[in-house]
Amino acid sequence: MVVNQDLGSLRRTHYSADLGPDNDGVRTTVMGWILTVRIHGNITFATIRDRDGDISVVAKKGACPDTVRSILSSLKAHSSVAVSGTVKASTKAPAGFEIIPDELRVFSDVEAVPPFEPVARTVKNIDTRLEMRPIDLRRSVLLHTFRIRSRILQAIRAYFTTEGFTEINTPKIISSATEGGAALFSIFYYDKQAFLAQSPQLYKEQLTMSLEKVFEIAPIFRAESSRTPRHLSEAISIDLEEAFVDYNDVMNRIEGIVGASVDAARLYVENHLDAEIAVPEMPDCIPRHTYEELVGRLQKTDSKMEWGDDLYPSDLKRLKLDGFYFITDWPLGPKPFYVKETKGGDYGRSISESFDLMYGDLEISSGSTRITRRADLESNMRRKGMNVDSFGYHLRAFDYGMPPHAGCGIGLERLLMALTGLANIRDATFYPRDVDRLVP
Amino acid sequence: MVVNQDLGSLRRTHYSADLGPDNDGVRTTVMGWILTVRIHGNITFATIRDRDGDISVVAKKGACPDTVRSILSSLKAHSSVAVSGTVKASTKAPAGFEIIPDELRVFSDVEAVPPFEPVARTVKNIDTRLEMRPIDLRRSVLLHTFRIRSRILQAIRAYFTTEGFTEINTPKIISSATEGGAALFSIFYYDKQAFLAQSPQLYKEQLTMSLEKVFEIAPIFRAESSRTPRHLSEAISIDLEEAFVDYNDVMNRIEGIVGASVDAARLYVENHLDAEIAVPEMPDCIPRHTYEELVGRLQKTDSKMEWGDDLYPSDLKRLKLDGFYFITDWPLGPKPFYVKETKGGDYGRSISESFDLMYGDLEISSGSTRITRRADLESNMRRKGMNVDSFGYHLRAFDYGMPPHAGCGIGLERLLMALTGLANIRDATFYPRDVDRLVP
Repeated sequence: MVVNQDLGSLRRTHYSADLGPDNDGVRTTVMGWILTVRIHGNITFATIRDRDGDISVVAKKGACPDTVRSILSSLKAHSSVAVSGTVKASTKAPAGFEIIPDELRVFSDVEAVPPFEPVARTVKNIDTRLEMRPIDLRRSVLLHTFRIRSRILQAIRAYFTTEGFTEINTPKIISSATEGGAALFSIFYYDKQAFLAQSPQLYKEQLTMSLEKVFEIAPIFRAESSRTPRHLSEAISIDLEEAFVDYNDVMNRIEGIVGASVDAARLYVENHLDAEIAVPEMPDCIPRHTYEELVGRLQKTDSKMEWGDDLYPSDLKRLKLDGFYFITDWPLGPKPFYVKETKGGDYGRSISESFDLMYGDLEISSGSTRITRRADLESNMRRKGMNVDSFGYHLRAFDYGMPPHAGCGIGLERLLMALTGLANIRDATFYPRDVDRLVP
Repeated sequence: MVVNQDLGSLRRTHYSADLGPDNDGVRTTVMGWILTVRIHGNITFATIRDRDGDISVVAKKGACPDTVRSILSSLKAHSSVAVSGTVKASTKAPAGFEIIPDELRVFSDVEAVPPFEPVARTVKNIDTRLEMRPIDLRRSVLLHTFRIRSRILQAIRAYFTTEGFTEINTPKIISSATEGGAALFSIFYYDKQAFLAQSPQLYKEQLTMSLEKVFEIAPIFRAESSRTPRHLSEAISIDLEEAFVDYNDVMNRIEGIVGASVDAARLYVENHLDAEIAVPEMPDCIPRHTYEELVGRLQKTDSKMEWGDDLYPSDLKRLKLDGFYFITDWPLGPKPFYVKETKGGDYGRSISESFDLMYGDLEISSGSTRITRRADLESNMRRKGMNVDSFGYHLRAFDYGMPPHAGCGIGLERLLMALTGLANIRDATFYPRDVDRLVP
């Protein structure tokens, strides 16, 4: 095998998607990796996969140089190659054309036996795949998932731009906990102790004072020891925060964001029928149910839940809630210190200007109107046993004209699960991190 | 003072930028914060700043309710307010119009004296500003800087999208060092030791195997104890990696990216003349100088530098290099283990397929063609004293057909410094982190 790692002056002329039967007779250089090689007597059929799809290469004795056919025949799946040749329209080829090669360059060959087949639609054990993630990601189902992920991000940013939001980045290394302490990873920061941010919450609130409408799409870190198909220790959060609005306006924004994401995913799937991904329909309005309403409905079933209890997946299933919907006006008690209380709640039943966006029993987003008065924040913090002094930098901003504001965080991986039907959140991210997994 | 934190059903009808003398007679509700209040006898002049700019409010006895005038007169800078009233064209007002108020809502007032004036163009001590960063960010100069930052990010992502790159996110919590060990922050990750990623290098290389063209714009973390106006401990890196190309192609990409950024910044400045920011010109081609050439030129001056030495800011100043330019083909020795050696280098003078993008004496980006052969990576790692075993997950990917690939990382904050003339990198980020600073 003659392997030549150097690209030299050789460059690709076409991606698979650029070619079709109409290009019959065109000279081309394609590059990618070997998906399959089959030998039928004097003919070798190879499939090369590139960024956009698959290309058939047919090396027939007499129609191409013998060395090209012999090297092609010897290649194992995954080898990285360039093929130069002529496009030939062919009704037998899956894409309606094949390439008759006259030159073949092998950039790197494969000696090892891959742990699973690149054409496998499913592989039983996700850990087997994760151990070889770069190879796993060559499977069609994941390629489609991650291209949809990229399109969704693009659509969401376009929404924010059109709506006049400014992109921000807030520090991931912080001196004190946002929500009060649990589930933080601690860091050695030079000679100090520090933490990884669970959320950009306090920073994005502060930035509404100047930029008014801000968004950040960035990693968040949670030391969650739960082993579930829905939790990651490192995830991407789509955060927005906006001045001079309340939680109802933020729900309207979420309708815009989810709508743009559904459209982007549907468009991708329409253009890639082999993706076999069923993107859910987007209703004109996402239904909004109050917590109170759902508790009432549950209490009419055999559920023993009481006002103030959390709503569990089993409860939501019992109510036959599916697709996207909001649960609004949650009890105030368990909410973080910065969530605003609804005026005029019943005695003993304080509620909050808050919501969760659900997809079936999966929580996708959580948001609220925020408190703007320093004294209210401080008394909430004390009630929750938080150290008010360690939030001095945050609290003092409230002395200088904090506007009314509201916002939310949307879990990108969970949104992607909802839009593509993924069963395990680990496949909604490239290299998942959880309590058991720190590699690769 | 009647303060009412509740927004209720009140909503903004116009931003400052939506209004002008043409809107004479229009009813409006604007919201923002008080920049200045001046009282001249029976007339109170207030300036309200919102996301887009400033609005003049003129409350004259008889022309508006007395309570509105009296409350407006009592407001301190930074108070958060809503004003409803009528637009009146006025050649005296800076924006050509003023608002005659009939209602005023104070969402939050200000008792404390701010540590610096909101209209100050410069504040002597950057630490004074950083301690009150949310208030500091209300100053025009920073508002413009951060809106330009947002536009640049948008332009760069548009470039990547147009060019067929897939957006990726790679883990920030990693088990071993990318570049060999120094300058890493260590974390407690459940029961294990882990680190914060200095770069997405190894992951983005792996992902070229499947997605071919990838980019990530995300935080990187470096425990740099140097106290300079150019170093941050947490920064945003614009990373790209591409299969089937070499370092020359990556330099072409950088020309596209810098060009798009310059265009975005210039467009912003043209539309915001008060920004007083001079964006540099973008040449059609960014000049490319080899390391060899610059060493030769230096040796013709009184410099004592020898082949193999680094090029210091003083050297670059001596050569009168300014604007954007590349330094290419650096000596191989100090380069990371994954950088490809140039074929046919002189004996004892091994060079690499590498480049730095400079702006004057500021390094903005560094990139190279990467090694694709596992054995070459392993021998480089051993030579550099790295533990090959701890990179097993990375190295084994190279057994399965790694394509030729190249890429670079661009420091967003440094690019923003180049484009806006900022002197200190701490003002190119919202909440800087350095050896001395972990708050706010």
